[in-house]
Amino acid sequence: MRAAVMRDRRLVVADLPVPEPGPGEVLVKTLACGICGSDLHALRHAEQFVAASRRAGSVFTMDLSRDVVMGHEFCAEIVEHGPGTRRTLPVGTRVCSRPGLVRPDGPRTVGYSNDTPGGYAELMRLTEALLLPVPAGLPTEHAALTEPMAVGVHAVAKARLEPDDAPLVIGCGPVGLAVIAALRLTGARPIVAADFSARRRELAATLGADLVVDPARVTPWQSWREAAVWRDASRAPALPPWIPGPALRPAVVFECVGVPGVLDQIMAAAPKGTRIVVVGVCMEADTIYPMLGISKELNLQFVLGYTPEEFAATLGHIADGAIAVAPLITGRVGVEGVAGAFEALASPEQHAKILVEPWRA
Amino acid sequence: MRAAVMRDRRLVVADLPVPEPGPGEVLVKTLACGICGSDLHALRHAEQFVAASRRAGSVFTMDLSRDVVMGHEFCAEIVEHGPGTRRTLPVGTRVCSRPGLVRPDGPRTVGYSNDTPGGYAELMRLTEALLLPVPAGLPTEHAALTEPMAVGVHAVAKARLEPDDAPLVIGCGPVGLAVIAALRLTGARPIVAADFSARRRELAATLGADLVVDPARVTPWQSWREAAVWRDASRAPALPPWIPGPALRPAVVFECVGVPGVLDQIMAAAPKGTRIVVVGVCMEADTIYPMLGISKELNLQFVLGYTPEEFAATLGHIADGAIAVAPLITGRVGVEGVAGAFEALASPEQHAKILVEPWRA
Repeated sequence: MRAAVMRDRRLVVADLPVPEPGPGEVLVKTLACGICGSDLHALRHAEQFVAASRRAGSVFTMDLSRDVVMGHEFCAEIVEHGPGTRRTLPVGTRVCSRPGLVRPDGPRTVGYSNDTPGGYAELMRLTEALLLPVPAGLPTEHAALTEPMAVGVHAVAKARLEPDDAPLVIGCGPVGLAVIAALRLTGARPIVAADFSARRRELAATLGADLVVDPARVTPWQSWREAAVWRDASRAPALPPWIPGPALRPAVVFECVGVPGVLDQIMAAAPKGTRIVVVGVCMEADTIYPMLGISKELNLQFVLGYTPEEFAATLGHIADGAIAVAPLITGRVGVEGVAGAFEALASPEQHAKILVEPWRA
Repeated sequence: MRAAVMRDRRLVVADLPVPEPGPGEVLVKTLACGICGSDLHALRHAEQFVAASRRAGSVFTMDLSRDVVMGHEFCAEIVEHGPGTRRTLPVGTRVCSRPGLVRPDGPRTVGYSNDTPGGYAELMRLTEALLLPVPAGLPTEHAALTEPMAVGVHAVAKARLEPDDAPLVIGCGPVGLAVIAALRLTGARPIVAADFSARRRELAATLGADLVVDPARVTPWQSWREAAVWRDASRAPALPPWIPGPALRPAVVFECVGVPGVLDQIMAAAPKGTRIVVVGVCMEADTIYPMLGISKELNLQFVLGYTPEEFAATLGHIADGAIAVAPLITGRVGVEGVAGAFEALASPEQHAKILVEPWRA
């Protein structure tokens, strides 16, 4: 099968053996697979990526001297059932799945593994028990966005929003956009979002942000403060006379950038008691000043992935239109185009999500 | 009045004018005042202390070219009521107070201020509305420990412990000991605590830790894991077959060291989902690896101080014996002895809490 392969720190097109489904597994044809920012990071900073993963408990440990087929945001079609499968979903069914194999000796990652190719290949093997059929009528390319949008749904769930919380989303790349879409499913309004890129700000508004800020022109916190004023002043907590009003609702910030220094900026600017949900994946060392956290009693909730229930619910939200993903898709490539797509994604002005369609001519 | 004064980065004994109580304030005689680790830091790293405080929102901003009288853990006696006071507590009443003045134009710090001397002086002014009478029969030196013990009560409250949480206290200086004492007021057991100092480990056991670890001999996490096994196996969550058991209860770690690097160590070693309560005050830059937090979905709750209710409750707990503070007091000095006490406190083997008694001959 043809695949875009990470080999010697580069993306090349290669012919690979078709993966064999093990017990309880199915062979699927990849219909569409999104390119994730983590894949860009894994290619550019491969050693760092592996080292960070290993120190964090060996989540994505790859042998970089061997081939890796990335791609973990996919919609696929069942081709063949392996041994010991229940075959509830017939061949030809379109499916989504969390990007992992469940095996008796432990889980395997799909997309960051030497042995389990991801969605930048024509074929993959998946665990039958994880498959979710794609609802009829839902375009394949929309279903492929289940995984990245589930990240937003999970981050918002971990934020444990209270009715009065006022959210702020820092960074409107795919992660920030997923958070905005997930916030729209809650009552947390208005949604303030910030990004230096005009294109991304436009997408943030399309996905449901109420107030979108260019941090080069105005600080996100200035806009947030205006948005976070209590509408019903009688519900606002009383401020001591020496604190200039108006009273503001509790701040919940979603850090969706994942670059060193952003956390420190947020901790320095955040009001007292702010909850910071760290969704952006920073794989490098980062410097913080604990005194900032202490003096304002900040809370940092780091988040990763999603639960099976959140993943399934996200597919449902996309199917029923509650999460409208169409504007996110800004490009489509075949396996030959993956290397170029990685280059193109470096510029936030051009793209949000590029889909790999491995069978594309 | 005589006072131990921070002047030109040194502690000297000086005669200072008696502070004048403003409207709603009282003049008090300092009976006993504990030396806090933050005071040691403020003396040794004065510029850093002020810079960190300023960036964090100007909590303790002092002009280091002017005198400062530190000391914020005190028990005092009312000497004189200022103008506009209600005089509910008569002259001669022993009192505790949160170390701050409430003024119409904003709060003032007692102990980290150029204008409001703290408890290393014979006399202080305090806000009448904040005064709590010391219950009859409670030794003055025990009442003086209300402030540092309230820090532990607050940290444990901010941890929002659930019945099954298994606590671990890293560092058994005065902050860690206060956390241990506060944990004993809850049902969170067993309490595992770690410190390199034998003396501090002994105090940790005295204050109520169930299992005390020398990190030079065994990692705190090894001991914690043994202590965190579910007693009632039927209540333990089911583990997937590839995860070696036994199942462990949720970890809540109290970081009570406040030195760069400790947070990273905790984040590296903590199990998935651990809540880390940052009580130790690290005033320097610190390096973390966000990927560690992300991959394990850690939560960091930074905490500071206490609420008025927690402060009052702590005085009550000390009075009724629920928090037994006597073993913490390892020395007593007059104002001449403050500089030497600061030196002595650098060694954890010798001391926990040294009380300054400014009227001591």
